[in-house]
Order: sequence, then C-alpha cells, then structure tokens
Amino acid sequence: MAQKLSPESRKAALSRLPNWADAKDRDAIVRKFTFGDFNEAFGFMTRAALVAEKMNHHPEWSNVYRTVEVTLSTHDAGGVTELDLELAEAMEMIADS
Amino acid sequence: MAQKLSPESRKAALSRLPNWADAKDRDAIVRKFTFGDFNEAFGFMTRAALVAEKMNHHPEWSNVYRTVEVTLSTHDAGGVTELDLELAEAMEMIADS
Repeated sequence: MAQKLSPESRKAALSRLPNWADAKDRDAIVRKFTFGDFNEAFGFMTRAALVAEKMNHHPEWSNVYRTVEVTLSTHDAGGVTELDLELAEAMEMIADS
Repeated sequence: MAQKLSPESRKAALSRLPNWADAKDRDAIVRKFTFGDFNEAFGFMTRAALVAEKMNHHPEWSNVYRTVEVTLSTHDAGGVTELDLELAEAMEMIADS
C-alpha cells in the first residue's frame, strides 16, 4: 500500500509540480486547470480518467465549462502518497499535450 | 435565448424529474448519481458530455469515484430553463441505460 509522504518528500515533490498546491482544509494536493473550451476540458478529463482507471487511483474533480478542478489524495493512506504525485504528473503531461 | 422558467413550470418539471431537487443556494437544479464504480460513473459523464456539447449547454459537475454530482442552470438566463430540463432528462436516460 502507498505510504503517506513525509513533509519533506511532499515539499520536494510540490517543487517539481509548481502548478499544484496543498489543499487548505485537508491532506491533499489541488490544481485548477483552465482550457480553451468544454471540448478541451472534457478531453483532458477523458484522457486522465483512462490513466486513473489503469492506476486504480482516482481523482476527485469538478468541471465547469472550460475549467477542471482536481483534488488528489490517497484515501487508504489518509493523505498524499506517491500515487497522487504520479497522477498529478500524468495530468500535467496530458494538459500540456 | 432560453427563458427562465416560471415557478409553476419549474415545479411541474421537477415533478417529472423526481430525482432532481432545487439547489439550496442558487437558482439551479441538482442531482447526485451513484454508480457501481468509477468506470460506470465516468462512462455516464462521457455520454452526458457528448449530449451537452451537442446542445451547447453544459453541466457543472463533480466526480468522486462512483458518484457524480450535477448542477444545472442556464447562465445567460440567470436560472433554470428548458435547456436544463432537457439535459436533466437526457442524463436520466443515460443513467438508466
């Protein structure tokens, strides 16, 4: 099972993921993505969903037209783990492509 | 442009959409869908996204694993219109299928 990251590991990881931030009210990382339109936003979600399903690690996310807000945390570990970093990195690659 | 429904029309419409309710804090209708797993939940979202894009009328929605919470409102009309009812009905059909 994925282990919750130490504060040091998490800080280092977030420095590699500059668009992500700590959630304010829980042990999670968050990012808001903004795309050109709904087609692009949902296209991103679809590609990310396939990655998430393959990882068996799923985001909490919301979509309003061209924006997608993502919260990543590992339920079983009660906080942020390597799985969240991996999914965040995958989302960055998808959003950049 | 779609016109905001009268209170009477809206009440009548909600009686045909028993799983939907008025949003508490804004002029919108809401529903929480619960599916068997993420695959089913995101499959629903994908089918609903295609309908929404075709209608050029988009939901506000969030997904956490097997649940999808949907809020429908028509921004340009400042409230619930026939477009929202149409999308809600389409979502019911997709969820039932």
